Amino acid sequence: MSRNNISIAIHGGAGTILRNEMTPELQQQYEQGLHNALDKGYSILSVGGSSLDAVEAAVASLEDFPLFNAGRGAVFNNKGGHEMDAAIMYGKTLEAGGVCGVSNIRNPVRLARAVMEQSGHVLLSGAGAEEFARSQHLQFEDDAYFYSQQRYQQWQDALKADVVQLDHTVKKFGTVGAVALDYEGNLSAATSTGGLTNKKFGRIGDSPIPGAGTYANNNTCAISCTGVGELFIRSVVAYDISCLIEYKGLSLKDACDLVVNDKLVKIGGEGGLIAIDKDGNIEMPFNSEGMYRACHNNLGRNEILIYR
Amino acid sequence: MSRNNISIAIHGGAGTILRNEMTPELQQQYEQGLHNALDKGYSILSVGGSSLDAVEAAVASLEDFPLFNAGRGAVFNNKGGHEMDAAIMYGKTLEAGGVCGVSNIRNPVRLARAVMEQSGHVLLSGAGAEEFARSQHLQFEDDAYFYSQQRYQQWQDALKADVVQLDHTVKKFGTVGAVALDYEGNLSAATSTGGLTNKKFGRIGDSPIPGAGTYANNNTCAISCTGVGELFIRSVVAYDISCLIEYKGLSLKDACDLVVNDKLVKIGGEGGLIAIDKDGNIEMPFNSEGMYRACHNNLGRNEILIYR
Repeated sequence: MSRNNISIAIHGGAGTILRNEMTPELQQQYEQGLHNALDKGYSILSVGGSSLDAVEAAVASLEDFPLFNAGRGAVFNNKGGHEMDAAIMYGKTLEAGGVCGVSNIRNPVRLARAVMEQSGHVLLSGAGAEEFARSQHLQFEDDAYFYSQQRYQQWQDALKADVVQLDHTVKKFGTVGAVALDYEGNLSAATSTGGLTNKKFGRIGDSPIPGAGTYANNNTCAISCTGVGELFIRSVVAYDISCLIEYKGLSLKDACDLVVNDKLVKIGGEGGLIAIDKDGNIEMPFNSEGMYRACHNNLGRNEILIYR
Repeated sequence: MSRNNISIAIHGGAGTILRNEMTPELQQQYEQGLHNALDKGYSILSVGGSSLDAVEAAVASLEDFPLFNAGRGAVFNNKGGHEMDAAIMYGKTLEAGGVCGVSNIRNPVRLARAVMEQSGHVLLSGAGAEEFARSQHLQFEDDAYFYSQQRYQQWQDALKADVVQLDHTVKKFGTVGAVALDYEGNLSAATSTGGLTNKKFGRIGDSPIPGAGTYANNNTCAISCTGVGELFIRSVVAYDISCLIEYKGLSLKDACDLVVNDKLVKIGGEGGLIAIDKDGNIEMPFNSEGMYRACHNNLGRNEILIYR
C-alpha cells in the first residue's frame, strides 16, 4: 500500500489582530483553541483516518470554542439571532455540502456533511436546512448556548453605529476552517462561520460556497478561506487556486501568492486562506495583519501562529 | 471610439424536450417567448446600451413569460409556494449580485441587480432578501400571479410520487439566462430560475452563484448555465470555462466543448449553457436532448432553436 504524507492546516480567521490589544492570557486561550482543533484532526489522520473525518472534527472543535466566530462563538445578526454558514468538500469524489443561514445548530460543519452525504443536494438554506437537520438528528442548542457578553456588546455597539461589522470592533474576519491530506492521498476542506455582526437581509458570504470559500480536488489542492466574503465570491478564490495549479502548472505556493497577495489585494479583498496540495505541501498566506492558524504534518512541521 | 461587435444569447432551459410531445402551437409560443426576450436585449445593445441592461431586460422578459421556469412561470416548491433564485454579473468590474429562495418578487433578476449595486453584498437570501427588495421598491406580485394550472398539476403529481422533480414530468432544467457583449466591449451575464418542482429544505442550485451558474469577465467570457444544479456547483462550471480560456489558452468553443460534453458528461451533469467571449463569439452547447436558445449579433447571426 502506498502511503502518502499526512498534513492538516486550520485557521480561526484573519484580519487586524493587534499585539497591543492581546493579553498573554487571551493569546494563550486562542493558541489552546487552535491546538485542540489541530490535535483532533491530526490524531485522526495519524491512525489512517480519512481527511474528511479530520477536517470535520477539527472544524467542529473550532465551532465549540467560544472565541472564534463560528458555532458557539457566532456573532449576533441584526435581529439578535445567530445565522451560521458552513461547507465541506471531499477531493476524491468532488462531492460537496453546504448550509446557509442556519440557527441553533451546534455544529454547522456536521450539517454540511449530512447535506453532502444524505440530502441529494449541495446547498440548503435557512429553515429548510434546519428541517433537514432535524430529520438527520443533528444536535440543536438553545440561544443561551450561543450567548456571550462580548458578542452581545459587539452587536449593541454595531446597532448604535448602524453598521454591519466584521467579527470584532477591530477588523477581523471571523471564520474557521480546516484542510487535510490523508494516507490514502485524499484531500478535504471545510469552513464554518457566524458571518458579520449586525448582518441584515440574509447575507451569505463565501464560506458555504464550493469554489468560493471552500474547495477540494485530489488532482490539485484543498482550500479554506477567510476574508471579505463578497470579494472572495466574485474572485471564486478557492477554485481559482485549483485552476492555476491544474491549467497553468503553478506550484501551490505560487498560486496562493498570486491570488492572495496580488489579485485579492488589487480589489481590496483583505483576508487569507489555508491550503494543502496533493503532495502534502502546506501554505497559509494572508494579506491582513494576522491570521489565527496552525498546521501539522508527518515531516516535522508543527506550528501555531497568529501574527506575521 | 473603437466599436466592438455586439452579441446576445439567451436560454430558456435544457433537458429532454421531445418532439412528439410538442405541438406546433406550443412550439410557436416558446419561440415567441425567446424572440421577445432576444429582441428586448438586442435592441438595447444596438443603440449603444450596456450589456448589463441588455441581459437584465432579456431575463426579465423570460421571467414574465409563463412557460419558462423563472419569475411568473416558477414551479411549486414542497410547501406550495414559489422560491426563486437569480444572479447577475458585470464583466467590466467583476461586480455580482444574487438572490436565493425569494418569493413574490416579480423579477428576481432586477433584485439581483439591486443587490449588486445597492446592498454592499453579493448574495442575499430568503425573507432578508425580500426585506431588502422592499427597501429598494422592487415590484412584488401576489401568489395568484405565479399560479398556473399546469405548474400546480406538476406539483400535485410530484407530491403523490414523493419526489423532487425537475421542471416537467419530462426531465427539463427550467432556468432562463442571458449573456451579452456591448459596443464598449463589456460582457455581462444573468440567470434566473424557479428551481425544482416539490423542492424541499431551502435547496439552492447553481443559478444564483457567481462562478457556478453565472459568470462574466471582460478578459474572458460571459456564461449562463442550465442543468443539474448540484453538479454545476461542484464543477464550478462557469468559472471553469473562464479559467480554461485565461490560463490554458483555449478558445471559447474548445472550453465549452470540454466542460459540457466531456467533464460534465463524465459525472452525469446533464444540461447546457450559453457563452459569449470578448470578441463576440457565441457558443450554446448542451449535452441533453434539447435547449431552448436563441442568439443575435451584428455579423448576421440570428437564431431561435430548440432541438439539436
